[in-house]
Amino acid sequence: MFPKKFRVIKPEIRVLGVDDGVFTPHVKGFAPLIGVVFRGGYWLDGVMSTKVEVDGFDSTAKIGAMVVNSPHYKQLRVMMLDGVTFAGFNVVDIKKLNAETGLPVIAVTREKPNFKDIREALRNLPQSEKRWRAVLNAGKILEVSTRSKTEKVYMEMSGILEEDAQKIVKLTSTRSSVPEPLRVAHLIASGISF
Amino acid sequence: MFPKKFRVIKPEIRVLGVDDGVFTPHVKGFAPLIGVVFRGGYWLDGVMSTKVEVDGFDSTAKIGAMVVNSPHYKQLRVMMLDGVTFAGFNVVDIKKLNAETGLPVIAVTREKPNFKDIREALRNLPQSEKRWRAVLNAGKILEVSTRSKTEKVYMEMSGILEEDAQKIVKLTSTRSSVPEPLRVAHLIASGISF
Repeated sequence: MFPKKFRVIKPEIRVLGVDDGVFTPHVKGFAPLIGVVFRGGYWLDGVMSTKVEVDGFDSTAKIGAMVVNSPHYKQLRVMMLDGVTFAGFNVVDIKKLNAETGLPVIAVTREKPNFKDIREALRNLPQSEKRWRAVLNAGKILEVSTRSKTEKVYMEMSGILEEDAQKIVKLTSTRSSVPEPLRVAHLIASGISF
Repeated sequence: MFPKKFRVIKPEIRVLGVDDGVFTPHVKGFAPLIGVVFRGGYWLDGVMSTKVEVDGFDSTAKIGAMVVNSPHYKQLRVMMLDGVTFAGFNVVDIKKLNAETGLPVIAVTREKPNFKDIREALRNLPQSEKRWRAVLNAGKILEVSTRSKTEKVYMEMSGILEEDAQKIVKLTSTRSSVPEPLRVAHLIASGISF
């Protein structure tokens, strides 16, 4: 898919933020996954959820299905992920997620991903090459200053121009150095356990 | 306990909002319960959770324990509940909840509670007198205009003066006619299912 060029980015653009919750690492099971619909960097408009297998391969499909089946789908303009790995090393292929949902995808992390470490960690898992290809498919890593020059995050993206992704990351970082949809998805995902 | 008199109510006062999620009515089981820590009517600061028995008697104790064991407890100034019944007719005794947590409690509803209907519904449940006493323990119902004269909610309270409770309900109703801590607790509680 060609990257979407935004004609205009409204301050109250509907952004989905996705993060995972608590799970037991390396143990067969599931991690909860939360999607929050946020209006720009301002307020929460909705919440959705799914679950993904620890160290599994279903995160791209599960996130895609959660989004497409949500009543918010038609209003969403862009999706932000807390990195490209959930529930351990269940790697999201952001190109595929973009193609399947038609929504631009921006993966954001506080720390710069270290590909050497990721490659090493993957060696201990089944089908490490498949996981590695999904990691590489996220493309190049860009540094973005959010609220101030010293507050930085790192992003990878698919289906969106670099300058538009940068604008959206900056625009939505109103309360901390990370975008609100991700800060809030993290608070919810880590606060629930039933 | 004497009602707390607020010396000053900061615009960014830490308020806990509590609501329940999806459950199967009249069937033995549990409903998820979400608590959100909100800064005034502005932003989310934390999320906590517990579960309560459908038509059970544990909501006062479960909410109390969730709050007191939370890392946010010391910073919280007031608690708001979406009415006094959760998971069907698991009635919160707001006087007891106030006494056990030391936090003022405000129960807010969009519709004016109809005591005649509640009394009738309770007759079909075991220990209906005990539930009814908890309902009555919530005290008198007050009408409050929130964002505008025509946007009204109804509140019952414990451990707080009427004028302070009114101020807090108005102050936190920034995005809709109900206080943000309750709007957001509702969005989260109804958006999760694993």
